[in-house]
Amino acid sequence: MSFPGALRASRDWVDHIARSSPARLALLVFAAIIAVETALLSLPAATASGERAPFADALFTATSAVCVTGLVTVDTATYWSFFGQVVILVGIQIGGLGVMTLASILGLAVSRRIGLTQRMLTAVETKTTGLGEVGSLIRAVIVASAVVEASLAVVLVPWFLDQGESLAPALWHGVFMALSIFNNAGFVVVHGGLTPYVGDWWLGLPIVVGTFVGAVGFPVILNVARQWREPRRWSLHAKLTVVTSAVLFAGAAVAVALFEWTNPATLGRLSLGDRVLASLVQGMTPRSSGLATVDVGQMRESTWFLTDALMFVGGGSASTAGGIKVTTLAVLVLAIVAEARGDRDIEAYGRRIGSSTVRLAVSVAFLGSTLVGVSTLLLLMITDLPLDSILFEVISAFATCGLSTGITADLPDAAKYVLTGLMYAGRTGTITVAAALALRERRRVIRMPNERPIIG
Amino acid sequence: MSFPGALRASRDWVDHIARSSPARLALLVFAAIIAVETALLSLPAATASGERAPFADALFTATSAVCVTGLVTVDTATYWSFFGQVVILVGIQIGGLGVMTLASILGLAVSRRIGLTQRMLTAVETKTTGLGEVGSLIRAVIVASAVVEASLAVVLVPWFLDQGESLAPALWHGVFMALSIFNNAGFVVVHGGLTPYVGDWWLGLPIVVGTFVGAVGFPVILNVARQWREPRRWSLHAKLTVVTSAVLFAGAAVAVALFEWTNPATLGRLSLGDRVLASLVQGMTPRSSGLATVDVGQMRESTWFLTDALMFVGGGSASTAGGIKVTTLAVLVLAIVAEARGDRDIEAYGRRIGSSTVRLAVSVAFLGSTLVGVSTLLLLMITDLPLDSILFEVISAFATCGLSTGITADLPDAAKYVLTGLMYAGRTGTITVAAALALRERRRVIRMPNERPIIG
Ligand SMILES: [K+]
Ligand SMILES: [K+]
Repeated sequence: MSFPGALRASRDWVDHIARSSPARLALLVFAAIIAVETALLSLPAATASGERAPFADALFTATSAVCVTGLVTVDTATYWSFFGQVVILVGIQIGGLGVMTLASILGLAVSRRIGLTQRMLTAVETKTTGLGEVGSLIRAVIVASAVVEASLAVVLVPWFLDQGESLAPALWHGVFMALSIFNNAGFVVVHGGLTPYVGDWWLGLPIVVGTFVGAVGFPVILNVARQWREPRRWSLHAKLTVVTSAVLFAGAAVAVALFEWTNPATLGRLSLGDRVLASLVQGMTPRSSGLATVDVGQMRESTWFLTDALMFVGGGSASTAGGIKVTTLAVLVLAIVAEARGDRDIEAYGRRIGSSTVRLAVSVAFLGSTLVGVSTLLLLMITDLPLDSILFEVISAFATCGLSTGITADLPDAAKYVLTGLMYAGRTGTITVAAALALRERRRVIRMPNERPIIG
Repeated sequence: MSFPGALRASRDWVDHIARSSPARLALLVFAAIIAVETALLSLPAATASGERAPFADALFTATSAVCVTGLVTVDTATYWSFFGQVVILVGIQIGGLGVMTLASILGLAVSRRIGLTQRMLTAVETKTTGLGEVGSLIRAVIVASAVVEASLAVVLVPWFLDQGESLAPALWHGVFMALSIFNNAGFVVVHGGLTPYVGDWWLGLPIVVGTFVGAVGFPVILNVARQWREPRRWSLHAKLTVVTSAVLFAGAAVAVALFEWTNPATLGRLSLGDRVLASLVQGMTPRSSGLATVDVGQMRESTWFLTDALMFVGGGSASTAGGIKVTTLAVLVLAIVAEARGDRDIEAYGRRIGSSTVRLAVSVAFLGSTLVGVSTLLLLMITDLPLDSILFEVISAFATCGLSTGITADLPDAAKYVLTGLMYAGRTGTITVAAALALRERRRVIRMPNERPIIG
């Protein structure tokens, strides 16, 4: 086959798969990016020692970067070379855009047929943002990323200079942290981690604010940016996301403060101001930055368990965050309130939420729970670790959060592969995976007669 | 007020509450029965030693009996007197009928107005059973209980005689076990528990069969009893319940065999036949008999975690079992399959399942998860026990299962009260509790405009 012929064939293939199963295209795009990153991290030049990284660690790190998780089996600051860290940072930036955006970019770049890729987005982003065309939507997403990341870097580069670094490393570290924060990636290239800076507001506030902005998601960022002065005119999605995120953040910060106030290994020995900042940062980490400034491994079991629940919920839809998403939680809660009150409709902010939305929320939450449950069972069988650490690690991987009680590095390879698969399924979305695996799509014309089984 | 006047006033009050909030009436009936049982168990005559039982233990045991749970802080066979055991058995028999049946009986007995109580049942039992009238439905439920319990006693009394007991104790023990099995109560009056009889099919098979029949629920028992030869004509509810229960039982038995086959403390030292019977009994316990014939405390962590999931699901609706119910699981799974396939309707056995049923299933599952999560968090704070034992105990209490890793007796009073509340909420039904607590019922005429937030 000639070169133009091969190009045309691959274009037709992308066309075909985008038309027949957008979910499968999205999964393929993500898998391909992870494969390339794994290959690059497998080069000897990627490690500080110059020795080839073991496959399990290269795959785990590549997946953790592209899925913006931040769980690491090796120390990012010391194990990888500058080249290796650049590879990780590129993975974070690409992965942070999200699976739908990436699939759309591929569709635009290869097949130049907006009509097809638009179909993928109509059900999701466009209705919310009001931007009709996919091309301009993708541009807006990339511009939003760049603007927030640049703002964070402008704050963080001077912080690294203030720590005594010279210009080049301060620039590198500042940009790396800016991208890691906005993309909720959880990777840290600061030697010795963030715990020494638990009381530093100059570092802590950008983490809290940057995480929040990245985690509400691109549809909300674009919506709010256009209608900054008129919150009442925001979309239902934007209102639900912002309010639920804010409530979860405040509740988590208060709970962490309450649970850890007297724990000498975390908040107990800090000054009052430092405890407040540490609680704020810890309250935001489950959204899913994973950037902790206290030792998670030393937290109380009750804090771990609460963090499990918060990580599972995660951040906003079509965001840099993971989890089942805050709107999923909000819709489920609204459905239950309506059920308990005996209301026919589920309502919020003067809008009705339809039953198909509830069904999607159920699917996402139930598939997420099942995936977490099965993975936990596997790790209980593979390792001798207790349930609390395993459940924490599994939910952190699923929700691409990156917090850990400290077991990641010592896990056997089989457990690393389970977590790798979990990060992939968590970031691409359980329902995307389920739709891609579904044997066929069916459209029936004849409706069956209705019958109610007894529930509960 | 004269006596007839007081009677009329209380009748009017029951009338009023049955009309305005059937959920609250159901909760009140259950709480009243538990209060009476607690008072009886607080009498010195109720204990073998003749000393008054501590309030926390009397309340816990009364709740465990009426909620047919079987978790115990004191040994049933040795701590309570014969009178105390009779009180427990009466609690089991009354509680096994279920909250809706009890509320209906009260409604019939006091206010003699079937119309009102029927409203409580129309949404639930009558549609499924096809029996129009509440009075005959209640009679059918009581007759079904008595028939199955008598059949079990006919098998079990000879077993106790065969163990060398004389007629009176054999009768008492046989009847107690028959009621404990059918009502999924999990109480045992055999000294030394059931583990010595792990290989005894004469005892094991009645446990498996009796648990299954009790756990499918009265609507299914009545439906199947009438249409024994025509499974195709069973209601959708009966089909879903029987099939889901059978699949869970088979899967659980195989999983227990796989996980525990080489564990010397459970199946490892048994003969092949004994391992098979033990796996069958253990596969049925989470449905929620709680009658284990191997030492649950010695099981592997993976078996505990799988049992957590199985207990949470529990048995059938309007049955003697607990949990979120098998139809809730079935409807959620069917909803997800439909979602992944892109189907408009949720279908099973040629019937369509409506969105209001899905919403109810979501509410039950989500409220159950929330209740389990909050209770687990409380017990993590109250005690120093590890997450695995606590989660197991909490789910066992919520799902009125009664299995335990062995921590119940040593829990502090505060933890006992948490579990007491959990058994009550689990047995009366989380959605019943939520509906009773809802501030008001609203019926809107104006519908809000529809808007879809992004999910997942
Ligand atoms: K992360
Ligand atoms: K039980």
